[in-house]
Amino acid sequence: MTRKRRPPIAPEDFRAAGGLLDRRIFLAGGLAAGTLSSSSAGAEPLSVAPWMKTPGSPFTPYGQPSRFEDKVVRVWTNPPNAPGTGAARTPLHVLNGTITPNGLHFERSHSGIPDVDPDAHRLVIHGLVRRPLVFTMEMLARYPMESRIAFIECGGNGGSLYQKDPAQLNCQGLHGLVSCAEWTGVKLSTLLDEAGMEPSAKWMLAEGADASGMSRSVPLVKAMDDALIALYQNGERVRPSNGYPLRLLLPGYEGNMQVKWLRRVKLTEEPTMTKDETSKYTILTPDGKSLQFVFPIEAKSLITQPSPGLTMKGPGLYEISGLAWSGYGKIAQVDVSADGGKTWAPAALQQPVLPMALTRFRMPWRWNGGPAVLQSRATDETGYVQPTRAELIAKRGGKTIYHFNGINSWGVDESGEIKHVYA
Amino acid sequence: MTRKRRPPIAPEDFRAAGGLLDRRIFLAGGLAAGTLSSSSAGAEPLSVAPWMKTPGSPFTPYGQPSRFEDKVVRVWTNPPNAPGTGAARTPLHVLNGTITPNGLHFERSHSGIPDVDPDAHRLVIHGLVRRPLVFTMEMLARYPMESRIAFIECGGNGGSLYQKDPAQLNCQGLHGLVSCAEWTGVKLSTLLDEAGMEPSAKWMLAEGADASGMSRSVPLVKAMDDALIALYQNGERVRPSNGYPLRLLLPGYEGNMQVKWLRRVKLTEEPTMTKDETSKYTILTPDGKSLQFVFPIEAKSLITQPSPGLTMKGPGLYEISGLAWSGYGKIAQVDVSADGGKTWAPAALQQPVLPMALTRFRMPWRWNGGPAVLQSRATDETGYVQPTRAELIAKRGGKTIYHFNGINSWGVDESGEIKHVYA
Repeated sequence: MTRKRRPPIAPEDFRAAGGLLDRRIFLAGGLAAGTLSSSSAGAEPLSVAPWMKTPGSPFTPYGQPSRFEDKVVRVWTNPPNAPGTGAARTPLHVLNGTITPNGLHFERSHSGIPDVDPDAHRLVIHGLVRRPLVFTMEMLARYPMESRIAFIECGGNGGSLYQKDPAQLNCQGLHGLVSCAEWTGVKLSTLLDEAGMEPSAKWMLAEGADASGMSRSVPLVKAMDDALIALYQNGERVRPSNGYPLRLLLPGYEGNMQVKWLRRVKLTEEPTMTKDETSKYTILTPDGKSLQFVFPIEAKSLITQPSPGLTMKGPGLYEISGLAWSGYGKIAQVDVSADGGKTWAPAALQQPVLPMALTRFRMPWRWNGGPAVLQSRATDETGYVQPTRAELIAKRGGKTIYHFNGINSWGVDESGEIKHVYA
Repeated sequence: MTRKRRPPIAPEDFRAAGGLLDRRIFLAGGLAAGTLSSSSAGAEPLSVAPWMKTPGSPFTPYGQPSRFEDKVVRVWTNPPNAPGTGAARTPLHVLNGTITPNGLHFERSHSGIPDVDPDAHRLVIHGLVRRPLVFTMEMLARYPMESRIAFIECGGNGGSLYQKDPAQLNCQGLHGLVSCAEWTGVKLSTLLDEAGMEPSAKWMLAEGADASGMSRSVPLVKAMDDALIALYQNGERVRPSNGYPLRLLLPGYEGNMQVKWLRRVKLTEEPTMTKDETSKYTILTPDGKSLQFVFPIEAKSLITQPSPGLTMKGPGLYEISGLAWSGYGKIAQVDVSADGGKTWAPAALQQPVLPMALTRFRMPWRWNGGPAVLQSRATDETGYVQPTRAELIAKRGGKTIYHFNGINSWGVDESGEIKHVYA
């Protein structure tokens, strides 16, 4: 059962400058875990803690996180005089894995979270259909369902990176409008097949039952491809902040199109040109024109640990870990740099890598205690490579806040402090 | 964009007796969704609900389910005079997909849920190691991590099915001690490699920091294979009821071995023979002897919808849906019967099918309004087939409560009521 100890870190174990290491080397140890002398192993560290001396808490119907984790919460912005308008952000810097727990899924609301009674709520399919249909929630529950793990990202996530100077925020403040869950529901194509689409139908309007009547036009090819009427989120019914009792799921498309509290789908010949796709969610370019209907999220990645707001605990071995995603399919590769993009090494991708889902990447790093600039760069299965911030700005200008997917840079200084920088 | 309507259900579309259908047929419609006349499509169903007339609720730091879902909770048994002892069960009959939300993950506690302070808690590795080690939680967080989606099932789940008569309980009461989450943490092999195992080490003792000092012996081959020191559960830190700040994850092994609130791992030559593996968690067989150290969960499955406690809403099309799992690897096939096991048809398996994870299966069913007995039968990738209850009882007898994995039977009567039956 014993194993040979692997050799210590050798020059050939480095994969890029700045201390990026081959993954297997981390397994050779070198982290300064506390070593016990044999005699102390049974002593102090194995003392009986207070919570071992008394029976613990009883069961609860619906569990909550430890009280010691009360800072792991969403934070939000809510403009004055606009009740319920704004966005609450997922604390990506203190989460791990790829699933976002339902209590921490980001939310973007245009007029607060409606208190929808599922028995009174209806989903209507009408417009260019042969047979307009109305569904109760109970009837929808009889249809065949599918599940898929999918990310949702707000079209405005990362918007502050278009600014001239790097905002001094952490991952949550900069990029917390992306989350990932297992969504389960009825394929929209099943319901559209039942309604019978007219040949002239090319688009659909999706409208929510919130006070803003949030609505977007969706190409019918997407609706028929992989759109889901999601009833469940990580196993339980969709949360109110995510569209209870049902939301539209459009894997890979910008979040606002995945209409929450969905009340109707209307088939049309042309886009409806709603307020939410004309006054908002268009990309203003340097020449003064706007890009409308930019639907899928381009490949993007982000180092979550270490990241701004966290502090390095002295030189030595660390794991660099983060998230990558693409609205065009699977993540094919993530490269990591510790020298601001001069040299790169491929990170390990946590399996299974699923299309339009968050993918966790990991890479061992030996921090020498000096300044470093950490970056990650995602490539998706179409071959698209996440651009540098400079490349993105050169193309898009700085007048928009939407679809920022440039490379992010975390600057580490000698004190171990980590800051958001442009590099 | 229009599609040909598929033909109605024909004799060749049936896959087994009792109305089990080919999956594609469900997509041809036939469910009695409410049809709107074209004129009414813009009228009553699209009336403006009260929640559209006023701004909704503001953001919250940590979200909760809808108040309309307040019956979707865990239920528990707690013997008298044994504070915190017992088990709280996941409401499988009202969940869908494969992930269990953290608030509803089952829990089995032997002396309640300890309120562990992560800053004071330590993990010690000692015994037959060259270098005993003690880890703070902060130090563990620097190690390379892995994530895996894995089920955990209590060894006593389904125990009431050993009884002579079928207990009149629902899925939650009968089988609610199984859940599934994405767990993230440090491979135990990484830490054991760092400690350096003595050649004589063949087992390890895992001990929890609860008042019961819950402890089990684990073969070192399993520890070195895929055991995880899990710090995260569905993205956030492990819940107190599931071992905060860390638990042992042994994919596929019975739940109690996956020690919660883990405080030490001691390498040994032989099993320690703790109270939890001698007085409990052994399988008493008909000849009066006990099977000890039955670690992996054998392949098992369960129809969750429809199931006891739910009611059919009249004859017509339904989706039969359920969960299958095996501690020996991936689920290879699930067959469904609507006639108590006389005829079977293979169900669709939700992709991706992951080893030692819950797998959702689905099959369309046309209920003719007559009596039916619904069953599911899992086969795992080793070729092992879930036995009938009779086969299992013939082998094991009825003196134990552990490792019940026989086929379950739901009897549907003409009124649409569903009951637990033996068939």
